Amino acid sequence: MDREQLIENVRAQMPEKRWTHTLGVMETAIRLAEQYGSDPAKAELAAILHDYCKYWPVQKQAETVRESGRDLDVLNYDKQLWHAPAAAWIAEQTFHINDEDVLNAIRYHTSGRVNMSLLEKIVCLADYIEPGRDFPGVDRLRKLAETSLDEALLAGFDGTITVLLEKRKIVYPLTLLTRNDLVAKLEA
Amino acid sequence: MDREQLIENVRAQMPEKRWTHTLGVMETAIRLAEQYGSDPAKAELAAILHDYCKYWPVQKQAETVRESGRDLDVLNYDKQLWHAPAAAWIAEQTFHINDEDVLNAIRYHTSGRVNMSLLEKIVCLADYIEPGRDFPGVDRLRKLAETSLDEALLAGFDGTITVLLEKRKIVYPLTLLTRNDLVAKLEA
Repeated sequence: MDREQLIENVRAQMPEKRWTHTLGVMETAIRLAEQYGSDPAKAELAAILHDYCKYWPVQKQAETVRESGRDLDVLNYDKQLWHAPAAAWIAEQTFHINDEDVLNAIRYHTSGRVNMSLLEKIVCLADYIEPGRDFPGVDRLRKLAETSLDEALLAGFDGTITVLLEKRKIVYPLTLLTRNDLVAKLEA
Repeated sequence: MDREQLIENVRAQMPEKRWTHTLGVMETAIRLAEQYGSDPAKAELAAILHDYCKYWPVQKQAETVRESGRDLDVLNYDKQLWHAPAAAWIAEQTFHINDEDVLNAIRYHTSGRVNMSLLEKIVCLADYIEPGRDFPGVDRLRKLAETSLDEALLAGFDGTITVLLEKRKIVYPLTLLTRNDLVAKLEA
């Protein structure tokens, strides 16, 4: 399957608005990859696929995660987290992507993880700051992204955690561990 | 060792200001125990001992935690957390307290833990709201404590986490798990 076929396949999985978001993540991920010395093609590929399962019925998302046999703990947390490991599994099984870095960039684009790779950081941050995003603080993240992936990601995760605290929602522990890891490295 | 001797021993471990804080925690823990149907004598005992090691040299605190052979992961986190498990060990070894609930109320008074007992909640909350405490939001915690231990504790932990995020400090993961556990139970 070539790039255009893949894109058409992905586009068919989601409403037009989410596809516009995906285009924004692709564009932003490519730009960040060029800026920070990562592989733009890998960044784009992960971006294309990152939300593949986002609009699937949640039970199908859960089944896909279970079928993958990994990241099962995510099923104990918010449904919003399930599409990421589900998409990594589809990328591998359906689209035969075997680049672990690309798969991990898809898998951890929502939660992050400890010791994120450069590519993982780029896709995760692109998802936060693509041009269509509009939430309090997003311009600060975009500004930080000009000079530091880590600072921008830390601000992104801290913002996410703060919103969840304010809304009395469960915080996925891995997101806190990711954010702690960024703090430890930035302060070292 | 009777109560008066214990109190004199504890008082000798810390500066006068911290002893005043301990008196405040004792008074508040007794009051909360009476209000919420816990044992005031146990609440007072845990309160008396909760900061026993707070002003010890940090290396001595760390050695005490290591000697206890448990809660060792705390040593990977902020030094401010070490005095709590250290004091639980001293309570058991030096003062021969064998009531597990009292020991746990001392051990988890800073971090909390998942499935906190009533006594653990009381001592932890008393530490947040004793009359000498003065931080932004403390009066809201005191107000919440009039009607719900869980709501007051959740607000306390969320405030702690928020301050740590703002200060770019590492958040002890158990504190997040504790807070998530309170949310899950309150929202159930």
